[in-house]
Amino acid sequence: MQQAAPSAVRLAILGVGTVGTGVVNLLANNGDEIKRRIGRDIIITHVGTRRPRHDLPASIAQSADLLDIVTQDDVDIVLELMGGTTVAKDVIIAAIKHGKHVVTANKALLAEHGNEIFALAEQHGVHVAFEAAVAGGIPIIKTLREALAGNRINWLAGIINGTGNFIMSEMRDKGRNFDDVLAEAQALGYAEADPTFDIEGIDAAHKLTLLASIAFGIRLQFSQVYCEGITRITAQDVQYAKELGYRIKHLGFAVRRTLADGQEGIEMRVHPTLIPKDSLLAHVNGVKNAVLVDAEPVGQTLYYGAGAGAGATASAVVADVVDVARTLACSVPSSAPTAHGVAHLGFLPDALQPTYVLNSDEFVSGYYLRLKVKDDLGVLASITQILSNNHISIAAILQRPAHTAGEVPVIILVEPVLERHMNTAIAQIEALDSVTDSVMRIRIEALAANQ
Amino acid sequence: MQQAAPSAVRLAILGVGTVGTGVVNLLANNGDEIKRRIGRDIIITHVGTRRPRHDLPASIAQSADLLDIVTQDDVDIVLELMGGTTVAKDVIIAAIKHGKHVVTANKALLAEHGNEIFALAEQHGVHVAFEAAVAGGIPIIKTLREALAGNRINWLAGIINGTGNFIMSEMRDKGRNFDDVLAEAQALGYAEADPTFDIEGIDAAHKLTLLASIAFGIRLQFSQVYCEGITRITAQDVQYAKELGYRIKHLGFAVRRTLADGQEGIEMRVHPTLIPKDSLLAHVNGVKNAVLVDAEPVGQTLYYGAGAGAGATASAVVADVVDVARTLACSVPSSAPTAHGVAHLGFLPDALQPTYVLNSDEFVSGYYLRLKVKDDLGVLASITQILSNNHISIAAILQRPAHTAGEVPVIILVEPVLERHMNTAIAQIEALDSVTDSVMRIRIEALAANQ
Repeated sequence: MQQAAPSAVRLAILGVGTVGTGVVNLLANNGDEIKRRIGRDIIITHVGTRRPRHDLPASIAQSADLLDIVTQDDVDIVLELMGGTTVAKDVIIAAIKHGKHVVTANKALLAEHGNEIFALAEQHGVHVAFEAAVAGGIPIIKTLREALAGNRINWLAGIINGTGNFIMSEMRDKGRNFDDVLAEAQALGYAEADPTFDIEGIDAAHKLTLLASIAFGIRLQFSQVYCEGITRITAQDVQYAKELGYRIKHLGFAVRRTLADGQEGIEMRVHPTLIPKDSLLAHVNGVKNAVLVDAEPVGQTLYYGAGAGAGATASAVVADVVDVARTLACSVPSSAPTAHGVAHLGFLPDALQPTYVLNSDEFVSGYYLRLKVKDDLGVLASITQILSNNHISIAAILQRPAHTAGEVPVIILVEPVLERHMNTAIAQIEALDSVTDSVMRIRIEALAANQ
Repeated sequence: MQQAAPSAVRLAILGVGTVGTGVVNLLANNGDEIKRRIGRDIIITHVGTRRPRHDLPASIAQSADLLDIVTQDDVDIVLELMGGTTVAKDVIIAAIKHGKHVVTANKALLAEHGNEIFALAEQHGVHVAFEAAVAGGIPIIKTLREALAGNRINWLAGIINGTGNFIMSEMRDKGRNFDDVLAEAQALGYAEADPTFDIEGIDAAHKLTLLASIAFGIRLQFSQVYCEGITRITAQDVQYAKELGYRIKHLGFAVRRTLADGQEGIEMRVHPTLIPKDSLLAHVNGVKNAVLVDAEPVGQTLYYGAGAGAGATASAVVADVVDVARTLACSVPSSAPTAHGVAHLGFLPDALQPTYVLNSDEFVSGYYLRLKVKDDLGVLASITQILSNNHISIAAILQRPAHTAGEVPVIILVEPVLERHMNTAIAQIEALDSVTDSVMRIRIEALAANQ
């Protein structure tokens, strides 16, 4: 089936690990069906790998010299599937300069160097497609850039790290501790040996950077993302949240706000979050991903699927290849606003706006607070007085019998509040003699329409 | 903002009811943001309406002569938002013949006459875009044609009629009867004065026709869709399903099957269905829509949102307009496989296959059976013997105290079975003297991956 015909789309695949192998297999299995869609074969002409692969057809040239591969004439599209931000960056830049289209799954690279890469791609009239960089097999990039192009996005909230969601799901379903579940996730291959990027939220922050830019038409600003991981969440927090009608999920939020001066601001934040147990996002379990988008006038839409793995990522990579293949037939006049139909960040490069990005003390959200207090008369009165002094309304209180003699856990849910006020109140509460430990705080989001 | 510039994309909107007005409002509200995406204004030059609208800008020409509007030079894209299958067909054909691109939300027209319309569009090198025809604001057409283009679709299951889903949700949440809820749906404007298309499943069958073609690369075959409505579902059925761990939803299914002879077959069916209460589709309530797609290698993905209403439908219509606008800049050589990047049905016209469509007696599914039986000794033994004789395995039985003296409701869930065998067994059961009424049957689907 994969015979080189004059019109075949020719790929160089750089990196044949999990994802690269997934793409090879996808094309072998579904190549005929794809040809029914686009009328052309998609063939692999080169593979970039340090260790030669003996299971690939002899028609595929293998080499470790990636910078050489991207200069070859028999390559239309370079698939960068290695990861990392050093070599990957060099080969992508070289590919662009040689007029090759690029498809990549590299969220870290794009979140940190995408502005430079996309500018270069515009200059050379090539695509750098990256559906696979966010939420695996879920077509959230295409959806935001194309399907919702008539909308003004109010906010989006996403479960965009499968490892984190697996851990939170297991803690809730089985009452297990964080460390236990993390060890299992590593054993199952869901989490890396060094799980920092997943459990500290850095991977999610990379993805959120891309989503926020595409949602609002701003430059990529990874350093501006507020990022909090899941390592401090205890089995008790998960249990208390459940009793109060919530589930704790690790979410990324990109939110458009109107500031006090009437100007527009944007929040980019990744953190554990209590969400109502009846929301669809609350039912996204295990390693699955989902993104909820609130936009005007479409309202709320949600996109769900596998966020990682060979098959899901290969699906997104090949969708990008098909998109590029479908536009290869078009010739675009130099007067066109972009080198191709859809701008990299959904908005034209010169239409990206320098919108203000809020600091965390400007965020507004509800809060779950867990305190350890001495079983003294009057301690609850002192705490509620502090909240009241800081204009913070209490939504619920849960006080439980003491675990430890004389020490009582108290859970307080508060209504949405400016984070600066919350910080002040927590500092005052922690200064009370009767409060024996630092206050555990987790944000609450209602995920209501037109928030 | 909406000033005619040389490069503006010029629309004629035919029909300014709910959806047409939604598009007018969307462009007024979000026109600036859309221009940041595509670099061009989108302006309305003509509106086709019988009654002149006094709230539209004077720059928009209004006329009742639709066939004249579609010939005008200052029209790039015709938006057919009238509905119906007579006048709408004539104006779409006239528009195509005049080289105009068309965007339509008309599922009935396309399901019944799409083969003819798309062939004509290919011939004249224009798009007929129809995202709004299925599931309102959910970009399921784009997703199947583009985002999942690397996949082989195994099956899809969709809640694609908001009225029907509203009725089923209310019956479950509040224990209400079908007739009550239908009357309320009509009062709320969710259901038409003549609700036949919604409650008999015809509207869903129109949409399923489009989805099945795009999923599998077959011609549109509305007459081949098996279609069953929700009118026979009782409050008791809803309650029994709940007790057994299911919810009843009105679903459309497009399923790829391997037949006994090794050939491929396709099921297209719309019917009430018991689905596991923990599945995401079970949590799609009210007038919302959702489509679950099981594909190889991406696995299961789900798409959720508003299935109707001015805003959601306008969002899909304008997404199509933006897609067309983004490709207007491209010139496509006559040697290209389609007149534009994406074929109307996702697969190239000459790649559509004459795949066999199964008859209902060839379907395989589990079943919920509700019987009324006389409270006789041995009646259950006779029934289970009949099932056993027909190779049907029982998954669960629920027998309740008699409502009426001497008459007992019995609920039986059976494992997946060839429908022909189920029909035989039911005929034999209904022939028993102890069975006092016809058997109520509802299909069960597990929605499991790789079904």
